[in-house]
Amino acid sequence: MPELRRDPIVGRWVVIATERAQRPSEFPHVPPATRPDGVCPFCPGHEDKTPREVYASGRPNGAPANTPGWKVRVVPNRFPALKIEGDLDRRAEGIYDRMNGIGAHEVVIETADHARTLEAQSPAEIAEVLLAFKARILDLRNDQRFRYILLFKNHGASAGASLEHAHSQLIALPIVPRRVMSEIEGARRHHELKERCIYCDIVGQERKDRARLVHENDDFVVLAPWAPRSPFETWIVPRRHESIFEAEPRERLASCAQALGTTLRRLSAALGNPPYNFMVHTNPLREAPSASYHWHIEVMPALTQVAGFEWGSGAHINPVPPEDAAEFLRKVSG
Amino acid sequence: MPELRRDPIVGRWVVIATERAQRPSEFPHVPPATRPDGVCPFCPGHEDKTPREVYASGRPNGAPANTPGWKVRVVPNRFPALKIEGDLDRRAEGIYDRMNGIGAHEVVIETADHARTLEAQSPAEIAEVLLAFKARILDLRNDQRFRYILLFKNHGASAGASLEHAHSQLIALPIVPRRVMSEIEGARRHHELKERCIYCDIVGQERKDRARLVHENDDFVVLAPWAPRSPFETWIVPRRHESIFEAEPRERLASCAQALGTTLRRLSAALGNPPYNFMVHTNPLREAPSASYHWHIEVMPALTQVAGFEWGSGAHINPVPPEDAAEFLRKVSG
Repeated sequence: MPELRRDPIVGRWVVIATERAQRPSEFPHVPPATRPDGVCPFCPGHEDKTPREVYASGRPNGAPANTPGWKVRVVPNRFPALKIEGDLDRRAEGIYDRMNGIGAHEVVIETADHARTLEAQSPAEIAEVLLAFKARILDLRNDQRFRYILLFKNHGASAGASLEHAHSQLIALPIVPRRVMSEIEGARRHHELKERCIYCDIVGQERKDRARLVHENDDFVVLAPWAPRSPFETWIVPRRHESIFEAEPRERLASCAQALGTTLRRLSAALGNPPYNFMVHTNPLREAPSASYHWHIEVMPALTQVAGFEWGSGAHINPVPPEDAAEFLRKVSG
Repeated sequence: MPELRRDPIVGRWVVIATERAQRPSEFPHVPPATRPDGVCPFCPGHEDKTPREVYASGRPNGAPANTPGWKVRVVPNRFPALKIEGDLDRRAEGIYDRMNGIGAHEVVIETADHARTLEAQSPAEIAEVLLAFKARILDLRNDQRFRYILLFKNHGASAGASLEHAHSQLIALPIVPRRVMSEIEGARRHHELKERCIYCDIVGQERKDRARLVHENDDFVVLAPWAPRSPFETWIVPRRHESIFEAEPRERLASCAQALGTTLRRLSAALGNPPYNFMVHTNPLREAPSASYHWHIEVMPALTQVAGFEWGSGAHINPVPPEDAAEFLRKVSG
């Protein structure tokens, strides 16, 4: 059983996921990009190579599950960091805290086409992926053990992707992770002081200044944040105040898909198909809509390394001002 | 001039170091491992290939600076993330905060021998490196613009090292970085509650339990922390309460050198000379000794990737329990 352990000083949780590695000598542990027999488990016709699906879209009504014909398919991760069965069982060990590694770890297969990246897809196709994200949150949030669901994508081996076929992931956690808490608390402090949402303030200032604005449509702005952790970090932020990703209706998710698609295509054109990660940050599960927090997507091209300075300080050194990155991204084709 | 920018939501500072990259297309920006002419600028006889030294040990009395004969040599970084000249000039831009990127960025050349790694050195030689760290802090802390000095080492290309010749670095900052602040605040909360230092409590529990203990000498314990961010993360912690690294006398730094040397040799033997980072965490500059904070060294083998889950959550997935890592490190030769 995996385990969640809390650092006693800074409160950071770590998932000790022993079943993801066999022995200390097997590092770095990277699952093979394709199975030894060369079969991609995410391709249509290989539905039996994955755990049984928990969601699929695109099949005709009445078609059986775990058969071809899907457009987006969600399956449990074969190498889950957390396990779905069991109780949390929070307990102490001397001064330390631990709990069972309860959670869900799912893979969102973004397309049936092995060679088609997310950024190559049409807005309507990307919207199907976002609708799958939403559907999985709406299902998993009924599980009272979970307090947060992190949606993320690793694209490219050096950004952590272990399989080539386009996919993203979600991990449902029994805690609210500290990076999200730190955004929520920062936004709450701003709201206490100003009675405004800081993300709404950012959207307002960036739409006026234009220097860090990459793109906007009716519902979303794409911007280079003021203090980016890595070159070409890019945020996709709803223009309208909304704290809960899964509360967005289908038409605004279609708008988000347009913004996400153009962002990924611009980054790809600017940087030559870079490895990247994106993460969806939203309100903790089952909480009331927040006046101070604002959901958004953070896209991080994996161009720089986390090394001693970053590990030791939590600060970052970024050689590209966001104004230069935004100007570059505005000019390339999206 | 580089610039420090503060994220308006979470308060994280980012160094925008434009002079470290020429244009957006030059990513990832890695300075060449050796100069185009194949000359290592850190080797004796090439003292003119670096900025003028700020410290050197080992030369006979009266020998001129910037000539061979040194054992440890400290020079300003040729590609500094921060600049030493100027005023902080803190200012707002709408809702955002920025200041000039004032700081010091120095390279500690750990040996005159190009092929000799830090872990291959004797405790007496490693002690010379730690004494260089201390001497540089004692000098730089007179500069009232600086509030923190982060000492760190990147070993191996995938841990961020751009030159092969053994070296570590220091960056003096006009802020206390958030990762250090978060340790200081966590330790302060524990002290308010218990009137004890949490690091002293950890040393006590680990020396009693033994399961996560790797090594100890008269002055230091080497342990696998309860919630390690990466496989084989290892901490070196003074047994005696001391918040300030640079307050340690020569004989305890010699003890620390013994502990650091055996730690690096054990990691190298266990993992096959892995890339790694280490970071020294100490009290902010010029602050009074703290009853709640406790200086220490964190060593992180670079075996796993920071990807979407880690960026999005600030949590980590670690396939190796620290008890297994410690047992393995106890058994190998150090």
